[in-house]
Amino acid sequence: MMVIGLDMMGGDFAPREAVNGVKLFLDKHPSPAVHLALIGDQAQVQPLLDEAGIDASRYRLIHAPEVIGMHEHPTKALKEKIRSSINTGLHLLKEGKIQAFISAGNTGAVMVGALYSIKSMPGIQRPTISTLVPREDGSTGLLLDVGVNADCKPEHLVQFAILGTLYAKNILKVADPGVGLLNIGEEEGKGNLLSQSAYPLLRDNNKIRFVGNIEGRDLFSRKADVIVCDGFTGNIVLKMAESVYDIMNRRQIRDEYFELFNYEYYGGTPVLGVNEPVIIGHGISKGSTFEKMISLAGEVLETRLLDKFRENFTPAKD
Amino acid sequence: MMVIGLDMMGGDFAPREAVNGVKLFLDKHPSPAVHLALIGDQAQVQPLLDEAGIDASRYRLIHAPEVIGMHEHPTKALKEKIRSSINTGLHLLKEGKIQAFISAGNTGAVMVGALYSIKSMPGIQRPTISTLVPREDGSTGLLLDVGVNADCKPEHLVQFAILGTLYAKNILKVADPGVGLLNIGEEEGKGNLLSQSAYPLLRDNNKIRFVGNIEGRDLFSRKADVIVCDGFTGNIVLKMAESVYDIMNRRQIRDEYFELFNYEYYGGTPVLGVNEPVIIGHGISKGSTFEKMISLAGEVLETRLLDKFRENFTPAKD
Repeated sequence: MMVIGLDMMGGDFAPREAVNGVKLFLDKHPSPAVHLALIGDQAQVQPLLDEAGIDASRYRLIHAPEVIGMHEHPTKALKEKIRSSINTGLHLLKEGKIQAFISAGNTGAVMVGALYSIKSMPGIQRPTISTLVPREDGSTGLLLDVGVNADCKPEHLVQFAILGTLYAKNILKVADPGVGLLNIGEEEGKGNLLSQSAYPLLRDNNKIRFVGNIEGRDLFSRKADVIVCDGFTGNIVLKMAESVYDIMNRRQIRDEYFELFNYEYYGGTPVLGVNEPVIIGHGISKGSTFEKMISLAGEVLETRLLDKFRENFTPAKD
Repeated sequence: MMVIGLDMMGGDFAPREAVNGVKLFLDKHPSPAVHLALIGDQAQVQPLLDEAGIDASRYRLIHAPEVIGMHEHPTKALKEKIRSSINTGLHLLKEGKIQAFISAGNTGAVMVGALYSIKSMPGIQRPTISTLVPREDGSTGLLLDVGVNADCKPEHLVQFAILGTLYAKNILKVADPGVGLLNIGEEEGKGNLLSQSAYPLLRDNNKIRFVGNIEGRDLFSRKADVIVCDGFTGNIVLKMAESVYDIMNRRQIRDEYFELFNYEYYGGTPVLGVNEPVIIGHGISKGSTFEKMISLAGEVLETRLLDKFRENFTPAKD
C-alpha cells in the first residue's frame, strides 16, 4: 500500500479546497491501494473532513498545529515553526512513513525544507521544478527550470535535460522526447554565454535527443518536448503565460487551447532531483488541482520515476 | 527640411511594401518639410514608384545595387557588399546627407553597421533596442533590451532605464515614467545575480523614477512604464508575445486588446544610444509598418530625442 502525504494547510484556499481535493480523489480511486496522510491542524481539518463525508478508513489525520504563511521567509519559518504542516510532512517522508508529499504552501519553504531534509539525489547538482507547456495540437511539452535556480551553469541545463527527458517518457508518455535549448536564435553560437556554452554539452550528451535551439516564438510548437533554460528565464515565461490566460479570462475570451493555460488543468509540479517524491502546487490551488496532484504523486510512485533518475546520475566521486 | 533615408530593399516584402509605405506616408504628410531618400536598386524600385504614382518632388532615389539578405552573416555581408542599401544608407547618415535611416533588413547588419559607422554616443556602453508593450487600459509601455545585448552588466540596465525614460517621455508622451526591473520576485534581493545587483543601482539613480521589480505576470500591467532586462530575457518575452498573437490569429480569436500584439501596429524600433537616428523594422514589415517607421523617424527628429540622450550621459574620462 502506498501512503501519500498531503499538506492540508498549504495554499490560499486551505484547508477547504484541500479537503475538496481529497474527496474528488477518493471518489475517483475507490481502491484502498492508496492511503492518504492528511497533515494539518486537527481542529480546522477534522470538521471539514466529517462534513464532506470522507471515508475515515482511507486516511489518517496527522496533527500539525503550525502553518507557514505564503509570504514568510522560508528558512526562518522552517526553523521557527517546527510543528508546521510542511516540516511535519517532510519529516514523515524522510522517515519513510509516507511515500510522497504534496504541498500547495510556501514554495520556497517546501523547496528549502526538501533540500535540507530529504536532500538532493547523489550526482544531482541542482534539483529543479518544471511546468507543463500546452501545445496547439493537444500534446504537452515540459519547460524547466521555472524559478528555483535563477542562475545556472551549462552543466545544470544538461541535468535538467536528462531529468526532463525521463519525466516526459514516464509521466507524459512521450516515446522519444526531443530536448530544445531556449535561446534567442536558431543556430549554434547564438545566445548568451550560458546558452552558447550549454549547446555543445547538450548536443554531445548521449542520454538525451537534442534538437537544437528553441526561440520564444516556438515555445508552444512541437519543435521540442523538453525545453531547458535557467530558472530566471523560465519563471518569466511561466508567469507571462499565466498573465495571458488571466487577461483572456478578464476579456471573456473562451478558447479550448488557451484554456489549457489554466494552472488548474495541470495541478502541481514535482521537485525533480530530490531523494523522495515531493510535489509543489500553485498557491491558488482548488479542489480539482489537489486531486490532480494526488494522482500525479501516485503516477510518480507507480512508474518508479525516481529510480530511473538514480540510474542516470552517477554520484560525484569524493 | 529634414531628409529621412529609407532602405527600399530591406524586409521580406521589399521593395514593393516599402514603396507602399512611402505612398501612405506622403499621402498623410502633404507638407514638403519631409523629403525622402529612397535607397535601393534603381531598376527594381523606380518602376514601382512610377507605378504607384508617387510625386517625384518628394523623394530622390539613391542607387544601391547590392542587397544584404535577411540571413547573411552581418559583419561578413557588410564587408563584402559595400554598395548594399544598408551600407549606403548608413554612409549617407554619417555624412549628414540624411538625418535618419530606416531599414527592415537584416537586423544584425544594421546594428553592426550602425555601431561601426555612426558609433555609440559618448558615455553609452551598450546601444539597445526596445519594444512597445500594449497594456490592457490602452496605454503603452516600453521593454528593453530585446535582443541586442544577450549578456548584460548591472550598469547596462541602468543605462537602458535612462534611455527608456527619455523615450517614454518624448515619444510616448508619458509625463513621469516609472521604471521597473523585470525579475522573478517582488522584493529587493530576489532574482538572479544580474537583477540583484541592478536593483540598488536603479533605486539610487536620480535620473529615473524606479518603481521596483516587475514579474512576468505584470508585464502587461501599468506597474511600470519602462521595463528593463537583459537582451536574452527581453527577446524571449518579445518572441513569445508575437507567437501568442500568431496562435490567436490561427484560432481566429479577434480581440481589440490582443490585436495590439500585432507588430504592424507599432512599426519599428529605434536603436537607442547611437549618434544618429536609426530605426529597425520587422522583417515581415508591410506598407503600413513602413509608413509608421517614417513617421517615427520624423518624431525622433522633431523631439530632438538624441540631444536629450546626450545631455544625460557623461562621456567616460580618458
